[in-house]
Amino acid sequence: MSGFSFKLLASDGAARRGEIGTAHGTVRTPAFMPVGTQGTVKAMFPGDVRAAGADILLGNTYHLMLRPGAERVARLGGLHAFMNWPHPILTDSGGFQVMSLARLRKISEEGVAFQSHVDGSKHLLTPERAMEIQGLLGSDIQMQLDECVAAPATFEDAERAMYLSLRWAARSQAAFSNREGQGAFGIVQGSTYEELRTISANTLVDMDFHGMAIGGLAVGEGQQEMLRVLDFTLPLLPRDKPRYLMGVGTPEDILESVARGIDMFDCVMPTRAGRHGNAYTRHGKLNLRNAVHAEDPRPLDEESTCPAANAYSRAYLHHLFKAGEHLGPMLLTFANVAYYQDLMAGMRDAISHGRFAAFRQETLARWAQGAGNAG
Amino acid sequence: MSGFSFKLLASDGAARRGEIGTAHGTVRTPAFMPVGTQGTVKAMFPGDVRAAGADILLGNTYHLMLRPGAERVARLGGLHAFMNWPHPILTDSGGFQVMSLARLRKISEEGVAFQSHVDGSKHLLTPERAMEIQGLLGSDIQMQLDECVAAPATFEDAERAMYLSLRWAARSQAAFSNREGQGAFGIVQGSTYEELRTISANTLVDMDFHGMAIGGLAVGEGQQEMLRVLDFTLPLLPRDKPRYLMGVGTPEDILESVARGIDMFDCVMPTRAGRHGNAYTRHGKLNLRNAVHAEDPRPLDEESTCPAANAYSRAYLHHLFKAGEHLGPMLLTFANVAYYQDLMAGMRDAISHGRFAAFRQETLARWAQGAGNAG
Repeated sequence: MSGFSFKLLASDGAARRGEIGTAHGTVRTPAFMPVGTQGTVKAMFPGDVRAAGADILLGNTYHLMLRPGAERVARLGGLHAFMNWPHPILTDSGGFQVMSLARLRKISEEGVAFQSHVDGSKHLLTPERAMEIQGLLGSDIQMQLDECVAAPATFEDAERAMYLSLRWAARSQAAFSNREGQGAFGIVQGSTYEELRTISANTLVDMDFHGMAIGGLAVGEGQQEMLRVLDFTLPLLPRDKPRYLMGVGTPEDILESVARGIDMFDCVMPTRAGRHGNAYTRHGKLNLRNAVHAEDPRPLDEESTCPAANAYSRAYLHHLFKAGEHLGPMLLTFANVAYYQDLMAGMRDAISHGRFAAFRQETLARWAQGAGNAG
Repeated sequence: MSGFSFKLLASDGAARRGEIGTAHGTVRTPAFMPVGTQGTVKAMFPGDVRAAGADILLGNTYHLMLRPGAERVARLGGLHAFMNWPHPILTDSGGFQVMSLARLRKISEEGVAFQSHVDGSKHLLTPERAMEIQGLLGSDIQMQLDECVAAPATFEDAERAMYLSLRWAARSQAAFSNREGQGAFGIVQGSTYEELRTISANTLVDMDFHGMAIGGLAVGEGQQEMLRVLDFTLPLLPRDKPRYLMGVGTPEDILESVARGIDMFDCVMPTRAGRHGNAYTRHGKLNLRNAVHAEDPRPLDEESTCPAANAYSRAYLHHLFKAGEHLGPMLLTFANVAYYQDLMAGMRDAISHGRFAAFRQETLARWAQGAGNAG
């Protein structure tokens, strides 16, 4: 076991290539974390998540605290053992999903009181409890509790939530169990307001978290606005800490954010899209439910090394979704996670070779070209 | 490509060990065929079906003729290529499922007219069309069209259906495309009546099919009655042809039928049970939804070589089913198919070593013992 670490290996413009060291192994950055909400990346064997190229996945504190419960997971050896994923895990604080999923939620200085969407049971999630749960799960990267407001937010709402998040950041950091090889991240809030983002970032930088997250984006503001916020927020963050853009995003969002200096991402997009018949490929997005694929003998991408992308015809995938077969979501989720990981690997390689700008142009051009013949 | 063949390698009492040769490879018997109804063994990658030990799987003509359609599958290179399963495939004739699933079905000398349960389209399935479809799919073992009556059946109903099935057997055999390495099987009918089974078996034996199936069992008559029918039917069948008991069954059904001389089985039981949270193991059946498993750190079977059975705790499987996660059905289906294949491999090995009777006793005793602590 070694301490939590971040090494910057190369940079190319604002884009960075690095390595996060945790007790459960190394995370190559820029990294995309598939989402394993309830202790499983939906419709994937953990070995395939690894085979697709993922170094780290994300677990959701809100779901796991309700079912099966953090204490139960701890008794069973922690989340890594429970879900048969011996590699790094980042957990969120639960705050975001309490606000989007729980019933009768009530936010106060102390924390968020809510009722479970599973069984109606009552809970209070405080910064201290959020860190305790993440410690019980044993996650390698633990997130402070914060309040994330949807866009558009008024300045007053954004300001109130940002300051509350800063107070919760201090309490979260104090409660962090800080076991060998684990890290805690602070979360910059402030919606789309430069003044608020600046106060939030500067305060968190002084607190010296292991890494810095940017929250409150991809919540309705649109890609252009998101990139504008990144443009003024990223220069405020220290070079020597990993930077995590929470809940983002499409392949294009990720490409543009890496160009601006983001190191880590998570999003349900590749897995959710896969379950609904949508494939992300080097040539853009395909809807396999579309009749245009019904007799197409080509695989999703004959050049992919992922068996789900290279060994099954589009016609077969179309059939599986039409027939409602489990194998459809299984194959497309695998293929999408592999595509996202291939994209990250391509960016890491391009940064190392000082050709990120060219990689970005080529990738955008291929997507634009592919969009014309996508089904 | 080689011709269709059957070699008897060993026998032990009435139990037989053998090998079926097809254009797509060898099938070790006694064999259990996982069911791939719609061109996929539900919730399994084809590579895992193979890894679990299956030599052959079963495809359903009724489902495939309706969706995606036999002609479409043929244009896409046949069923093996379509579903990425390069190993042997047996297809049923469609008759059984027309009678259980289709709407407005009407049986006549010519065949069965029906409406699709998928889209209401009208179809006529004749013995000739059933064989044509199986030829288009390219299956290695093709079944005659027959009429299967449920138990209990009156003598008159069973007799009428048996004679119709014999006339359809002759038409099926005449229509069989008989490509190199493919075989056609006749189906003995006659419900639970020895007189009818005898007429059916003797007539089909004279027709010299590549193999002999026993149909119309496991349709409500109960295990004891099924075994009684096998006891008087099996001696009527030639030693040098494979014997296939259709739609059977539980591990115990299979053990008892192998003891009587059956070589091949198919059943949705391991796959359907897996999707519903039920596991078949060496120690009997477990319902993983049961709360008794909620904190059980043991895998399904630490001695299994199947990762789904040896690498995930019962507590985790319980959680997956409680949370409605895809991975639950994926893991239990894999584990169940592997268990069924292990059981077949154990029987083949026991027959080779002349210890089938001991194997049967040990297996039954272990199940009886396990039933006490099963959840």
